[in-house]
Amino acid sequence: MTDLWQNAMDHAVALARKAGSLVRDAVQNDMKVMLKSSSVDLVTKTDQKVEQLIIDSVKEKFPTHSFIGEESVAAGEPCVLTDNPTWIVDPVDGTTNFVHGYPFVAVSIGFAVNRKLEFGVVYSCIEDKMYTARKGKGAFCNGQLLNVSDQKEISQSIIATEFGSNRDTEVVDKIFSSMRKILCLPIHGIRGVGTAATNMCLVASGCVEAYYEIGIHCWDIAAGAIIVTEAGGVLMDVDGGPLDLMSRRVVAANNKIIAERIVKEIDAFTPLRDDAPTET
Amino acid sequence: MTDLWQNAMDHAVALARKAGSLVRDAVQNDMKVMLKSSSVDLVTKTDQKVEQLIIDSVKEKFPTHSFIGEESVAAGEPCVLTDNPTWIVDPVDGTTNFVHGYPFVAVSIGFAVNRKLEFGVVYSCIEDKMYTARKGKGAFCNGQLLNVSDQKEISQSIIATEFGSNRDTEVVDKIFSSMRKILCLPIHGIRGVGTAATNMCLVASGCVEAYYEIGIHCWDIAAGAIIVTEAGGVLMDVDGGPLDLMSRRVVAANNKIIAERIVKEIDAFTPLRDDAPTET
Repeated sequence: MTDLWQNAMDHAVALARKAGSLVRDAVQNDMKVMLKSSSVDLVTKTDQKVEQLIIDSVKEKFPTHSFIGEESVAAGEPCVLTDNPTWIVDPVDGTTNFVHGYPFVAVSIGFAVNRKLEFGVVYSCIEDKMYTARKGKGAFCNGQLLNVSDQKEISQSIIATEFGSNRDTEVVDKIFSSMRKILCLPIHGIRGVGTAATNMCLVASGCVEAYYEIGIHCWDIAAGAIIVTEAGGVLMDVDGGPLDLMSRRVVAANNKIIAERIVKEIDAFTPLRDDAPTET
Repeated sequence: MTDLWQNAMDHAVALARKAGSLVRDAVQNDMKVMLKSSSVDLVTKTDQKVEQLIIDSVKEKFPTHSFIGEESVAAGEPCVLTDNPTWIVDPVDGTTNFVHGYPFVAVSIGFAVNRKLEFGVVYSCIEDKMYTARKGKGAFCNGQLLNVSDQKEISQSIIATEFGSNRDTEVVDKIFSSMRKILCLPIHGIRGVGTAATNMCLVASGCVEAYYEIGIHCWDIAAGAIIVTEAGGVLMDVDGGPLDLMSRRVVAANNKIIAERIVKEIDAFTPLRDDAPTET
């Protein structure tokens, strides 16, 4: 079995690199189109094209595996994590960045068996950084071993988060309130590159102590989650309980001390779950 | 005269590259030291070493020129912009990033004559991106011509800013209030890489439509300012008046429409000027 998953992981790395080069080409060559009119269409086109490339290739090589992908779910496919080996894919994480040519756009491929992550691959394609992690075997960036920061003092930490795309007053209130309380603990600073997958890789790399966000989807964080734990970090829900991949809430940190300190300051809310029954 | 400034600019580019490689080495090799105890000392040590390298080299080559540098001013040198040719230098812009190995740290060298910027050089040393601009001759990144975004709709824009390092309640109130109003215009998103110089280069590159901040210093923005205008962008004060390099307030945008739209939402405040008389 182990060999099979390593085989799947090798395939995921190759796919992420291929997908990432398509995304990078789109950013570099189609910027003029995007800056004109139909940026939304172009994102959707690239998203769908890249996701289909990954689906087709996975189905051919691993016909019994399941698939959860941002575009497939948008098109009405179910988003339910079963015990079956499941590929959890975001073809373009950081779509706002993508439209603007802001240099953080990632292909994110997570893989779970019995609802536990076995490996994760995040290809930050404009930076050309390939982050990978296999359960029990460590996390790497371009082949270099990653380790989380060993900082235990929140006052010496950088925390990553995002403003998100929801502009409802109640949600914005909570996002700003959490950020402010964390900033004024005080901490060294707040950062965020505009993609959940890359933010989690920055935790794994030790550049930031923690990342938290409410509103992300399972495909944004599945790969990053195992990259963080294999780099020595921890995952939890924003209320301090165990991470639930489908709950759209995440804290990823270098250690439990930092994670639990942040949790105290987060004004949590509960978006509609990724695996909520769809309206009929 | 023109030849002399081009000569000075060539020297600035060479110095920025040399200084940047020292900074990059410090980030890559001294991270373990930084993560332990005396990160502040290490920053200061690198800052001072790099600034001294630049000062010594400028004084040798251009003995009549003036110099304004972060570390020199911290050590009690005056911070007054005269008509004399003046080098305005931040040896390490993004010191918090530097301490954490967060991948945006810049060497910033601006050059003014008769209080007008003649050229700017920003070397984002971890990314290895050399941004340059010479008055009337365009802005470049690693030799590629830069152009600001042509976006005129604020709702389609990304705005860069920072939380800053001041944690006084009144200042934090205004920073959050401005951010929130701008986010909810609405816009596509807020970003910020943690260095003013690099944020300005992102405006010049067209990745973000605008950048604003209150609390920065002249050495953070002098080089970036001419890079923005040479890429086709505009500069103003956060109240919509002309930019004052010494006022510690800046708006840099792709065009006047976006700049003026942001200005309406900024809760301005007035930090102590860079050229304020020092207490005796």
